[in-house]
Amino acid sequence: MAFRFEVTQKDSLSQARLGRVETDHGSFTTPAFLPVGTQGTIKSLTPEELIEIGVEAILGNTYHLYLRPGHETIKRLGGLHTFMHWGRPILTDSGGFQIFSLGSLRKIAEEGVTFQSHLDGSSHFLTPEKVLEIQRALGSDIAMVLDECVPYPSPYEYVKISMERTSRWAERSLEVRRERDPALFAIVQGGVYRDLREKSVQTLMKMEFQGYAIGGLSVGEPKSMMSEVLKWTTPLLPENHPRYLMGVGTPEDILHAIMLGVDFFDCVLPTRNARNGTLFTSFGKISIKQAQYAEDKKPVDETCTCYTCRHYSRAYLRHLYLSKEILSSRLNTIHNLFYYIELLRRIRKAIQEGKLLDFHKSHTSIHGLEKESSIHF
Amino acid sequence: MAFRFEVTQKDSLSQARLGRVETDHGSFTTPAFLPVGTQGTIKSLTPEELIEIGVEAILGNTYHLYLRPGHETIKRLGGLHTFMHWGRPILTDSGGFQIFSLGSLRKIAEEGVTFQSHLDGSSHFLTPEKVLEIQRALGSDIAMVLDECVPYPSPYEYVKISMERTSRWAERSLEVRRERDPALFAIVQGGVYRDLREKSVQTLMKMEFQGYAIGGLSVGEPKSMMSEVLKWTTPLLPENHPRYLMGVGTPEDILHAIMLGVDFFDCVLPTRNARNGTLFTSFGKISIKQAQYAEDKKPVDETCTCYTCRHYSRAYLRHLYLSKEILSSRLNTIHNLFYYIELLRRIRKAIQEGKLLDFHKSHTSIHGLEKESSIHF
Repeated sequence: MAFRFEVTQKDSLSQARLGRVETDHGSFTTPAFLPVGTQGTIKSLTPEELIEIGVEAILGNTYHLYLRPGHETIKRLGGLHTFMHWGRPILTDSGGFQIFSLGSLRKIAEEGVTFQSHLDGSSHFLTPEKVLEIQRALGSDIAMVLDECVPYPSPYEYVKISMERTSRWAERSLEVRRERDPALFAIVQGGVYRDLREKSVQTLMKMEFQGYAIGGLSVGEPKSMMSEVLKWTTPLLPENHPRYLMGVGTPEDILHAIMLGVDFFDCVLPTRNARNGTLFTSFGKISIKQAQYAEDKKPVDETCTCYTCRHYSRAYLRHLYLSKEILSSRLNTIHNLFYYIELLRRIRKAIQEGKLLDFHKSHTSIHGLEKESSIHF
Repeated sequence: MAFRFEVTQKDSLSQARLGRVETDHGSFTTPAFLPVGTQGTIKSLTPEELIEIGVEAILGNTYHLYLRPGHETIKRLGGLHTFMHWGRPILTDSGGFQIFSLGSLRKIAEEGVTFQSHLDGSSHFLTPEKVLEIQRALGSDIAMVLDECVPYPSPYEYVKISMERTSRWAERSLEVRRERDPALFAIVQGGVYRDLREKSVQTLMKMEFQGYAIGGLSVGEPKSMMSEVLKWTTPLLPENHPRYLMGVGTPEDILHAIMLGVDFFDCVLPTRNARNGTLFTSFGKISIKQAQYAEDKKPVDETCTCYTCRHYSRAYLRHLYLSKEILSSRLNTIHNLFYYIELLRRIRKAIQEGKLLDFHKSHTSIHGLEKESSIHF
């Protein structure tokens, strides 16, 4: 498939950059946030709603779609885009994160990973080649190589062995790549060990990937460590290739990572929080179930222009949440995704106007995060 | 509140009629189907989606809203229309059906009904006066008097006592009515006993109600009995007042009842069936979870023009259902409500063109219901 990435502007005071990713299903501007569509749907929303929110690209989960309904089924139904009625870019992960989260239900070897389905206990064997085949069948625009995502903390020796295997898996993926395949991204691993991260980047840069994902972060390590790893890693990555930080994160994590040179992100945080009644606002997170909102006529955030804030009160959202109504998940998800997409829009604008440091200062000050922030530029 | 009903056309071969109900929140054409918004939301949908489907009026449940979030809360928040962002007509029931469904958790007396909340076991006492006060606080357009809905079968003596009490409750409701109150409908009871139904109508017609609901049907009696009761009842009701058949029913029930002179309906069937994966189609009901749809690219119904049928395959809907995705409830509800609203549209058109008998014949023949149908005109 066609794939092109272009850096259109670089920030002079940080590593941040503006860019554009082009695929056969259209383009998206970076820095970007990709909502997670685990089972072929961004939970509770339609594609039309995502477009209204301003979503330009989404993530699909290889592990979940492989198990149900199956990648061959999706292929016969015209591919994931047609299946779920989403015509814009789709990035698929490799399933690595989900498989390695299964703990004792999986066994790793040089050839690949054996695991038991969380749905029915059936046994499966996935290799780097198979994982690419699955993503090819899904018709993904951007595919990830199979990787092992090690938890934090893990001993140096194991992280080293694992990172080297992930690099060999990357190489095997390239060997079976076909002309019409999705763009293929390698995944940098190496835990919180600087020399291993550097080694990982060096090894992968010798191969021909269209982009680089940074994996193994947001897996339990302290926030300051994520920053450290990014500071070691992104400067080593080629400037003209996109950098994708997997599974991250909070609005603040994203802002920091952008300033350290990351181009795009995916995370279940806004959508999962929404379903749990936790909403992002310009004045911090709120829990909509609190009694103080019982007769509150105000929208979630008076500065927000999303569909939910335009039409519904905190009191109504609290009522829907307590009543376990489906509309609760919908309205909350719309709001939280809008918050993320709008945040990215404002970050891009700040980069464009050369005001990203001011934006960072004002954002962390509003959210009382000066102390939490361990990044200095 | 303003309320006006006008019969605009009468069918010459059946009791069916076309009409128009006007309220302070706009009008709706009859025969009409009102989706049920139990807890201040038509489960899973937004008001905008209801409007796109063609819904003109909805029902709200007094019992549920009284318990949570409370009618006083809704009043302080601007009324039910504002609370739920629905600007069109709302009919509220009296809570009678829900209270009497509580079985051993309620106790009935001349003054009113004592019952325990299904939410927290708290004790409540509702009278005809209180039930009107609640509906006034909700800002309903059409309110129902408190009634007792007796199950089928019930002994003649009990149904008689109950029906007479419901009539006395209707009278008490009128006595406390205020000028800006919702339009008030009486409820005809009397079970499956002809003389009791006749007595109920005669008593209620002496009072000044804006419309007449027919209650106590679709509570377990054979289908033929519902037709019999309607045949005894509707001809006795005043021609220039609307007739509302509560809690009914299947598409065929609705078609039959319209031919027997009923003007509008509410029922959870299309919305509840949707969430259970049962979909109405022009060729009968289907269960979307069936294995035969696993790779079926066709829409639910190729003759349907709803959002769901325009964009999604049976295979995708099956996948969403099996994956317990929220979008499953949404897409299925859109389809089923569209089916009902479209059915009513076609029935109104058939009445207008004097072709209702043909429509009935073709509908029951397509659905293989000739034998089931016990109504002859």
